Amino acid sequence: MKKQSMYLKTASYFPYLSIILAALLCAAFSGCTAAPAVQPDPAPDSDFTETVYQVSTLNALMQGVYDGEIPIGQLTQEGDLGIGTFDGLDGEMVVLDGRVYQVRADGKAVEVEDEVKTPFAVVTFFDPEQQVQLTGLEDYAGLQAELDKLLPSPNMFYAFRIDGSFDYVKTRSVPRQNKPYPPLVEVTDLQPTFEFQDVQGTLVGFWCPSFVEGINMPGYHLHFLTEDHTAGGHLLECALTEGSVSVDIKTEFQMLLPQNEHFALIDLDESLEEEIKQAEQ
Amino acid sequence: MKKQSMYLKTASYFPYLSIILAALLCAAFSGCTAAPAVQPDPAPDSDFTETVYQVSTLNALMQGVYDGEIPIGQLTQEGDLGIGTFDGLDGEMVVLDGRVYQVRADGKAVEVEDEVKTPFAVVTFFDPEQQVQLTGLEDYAGLQAELDKLLPSPNMFYAFRIDGSFDYVKTRSVPRQNKPYPPLVEVTDLQPTFEFQDVQGTLVGFWCPSFVEGINMPGYHLHFLTEDHTAGGHLLECALTEGSVSVDIKTEFQMLLPQNEHFALIDLDESLEEEIKQAEQ
Repeated sequence: MKKQSMYLKTASYFPYLSIILAALLCAAFSGCTAAPAVQPDPAPDSDFTETVYQVSTLNALMQGVYDGEIPIGQLTQEGDLGIGTFDGLDGEMVVLDGRVYQVRADGKAVEVEDEVKTPFAVVTFFDPEQQVQLTGLEDYAGLQAELDKLLPSPNMFYAFRIDGSFDYVKTRSVPRQNKPYPPLVEVTDLQPTFEFQDVQGTLVGFWCPSFVEGINMPGYHLHFLTEDHTAGGHLLECALTEGSVSVDIKTEFQMLLPQNEHFALIDLDESLEEEIKQAEQ
Repeated sequence: MKKQSMYLKTASYFPYLSIILAALLCAAFSGCTAAPAVQPDPAPDSDFTETVYQVSTLNALMQGVYDGEIPIGQLTQEGDLGIGTFDGLDGEMVVLDGRVYQVRADGKAVEVEDEVKTPFAVVTFFDPEQQVQLTGLEDYAGLQAELDKLLPSPNMFYAFRIDGSFDYVKTRSVPRQNKPYPPLVEVTDLQPTFEFQDVQGTLVGFWCPSFVEGINMPGYHLHFLTEDHTAGGHLLECALTEGSVSVDIKTEFQMLLPQNEHFALIDLDESLEEEIKQAEQ
């Protein structure tokens, strides 16, 4: 069912990490016969290679903090791959190869101007350590089970990019909201969903560790964009025919909190675990 | 009981924040009669003025991840005020005016070489927006109640510096541990404590919002250093005779996760709320 063409790139400027990960990955993969070459890079390009950058907190978005915080032109200074939404909860964001796409409430995707703002986004400079080929995965649960095998530790962040052909993809988007903003669960209760058959495209997103609860959602969060960049959305279900999975281990996290009164005054104490599951899955 | 000589500095490069905070602070202080001058600064010194920088997670430290992660010389590139500990849990860290002090298990403080590493630390470049004078606070709870009034929102980070004379200060430190490292609660059960009477000194530290649970401790976390920089520790109790409190509102958070196998393999899923209270208070 599964072909592996695994390779390890140098784990950036973390000399220890690459060795640990090589050991862990070799232990995790029973089919792994050759130790990957490990050459710590003495001259990193940037301090932020391993950083996941987030605007706001997911709990704030859940509670309706939808006003755009920073412009897209600033967001793309912090990463070239990621997910999010737009000012007023105006659709689903897909960041791919440094370009930012808005999947509108009708499922159509358009490229976004730098001036548009985002109230919530998670991006990173994608620099994968590993790539595997996957085939014949019947559902999203099956894909997640395969992706799980690529995570050497439950205590780090991971960015994913999956380019492939899909028998089936189901996504959702969200329509722009007016003030007073309703909570996200009220919006997603009425969310438009979209189904794609025999489609080529890309999934991008993150796996977050359990300790981000309250700030983001532990586990997977992926968005989809068709190969021609005309449609997509927040991933709800998929069947992968064949695809290439790239994974980027992330060991730094940076978060920008909103500078508006709505965020300053809301009650973020309560756990929204159940509501997040309902809104995101 | 309390004198206030409050002022608002320009809230750095966040034009909205300063206005919000001025409004919120005026609402919060019944004795506030004049609106503070608000002049957004168009040319910030640095992108990182408002960032709280953290090494590791508090839950990892609780579980005994005590191996030093980054050297002090690197930590001080990320902040000039803060708290933490050292490789092997070797004492309490106080960062003040860019200098890093180690309060050893005997309560004595020494300045630390750049090469020493830290497994857990929280630092920031201290740039306070507000300063108040406080007098005659009988205990730490009373101090916290006064500090609470300086927090315009429960959803941000705050850094504090309190220079003053104290009737009484009680601190603790922790002795260097050997492998296999025990959990922090086992160490703090046997912690040496120190009492100071009629002492001049400085408290430094942070207030963290509820959503950091799992990553850090919600609420206050302060460390003490005597005026002559020869003693101090993790604050357990105090009575403030008279002092100047400076508070710096922080709206960015950055976290570096450890690159070692111990961190990679521990179970961070369980809530350690009760253990953290026991260890830190």
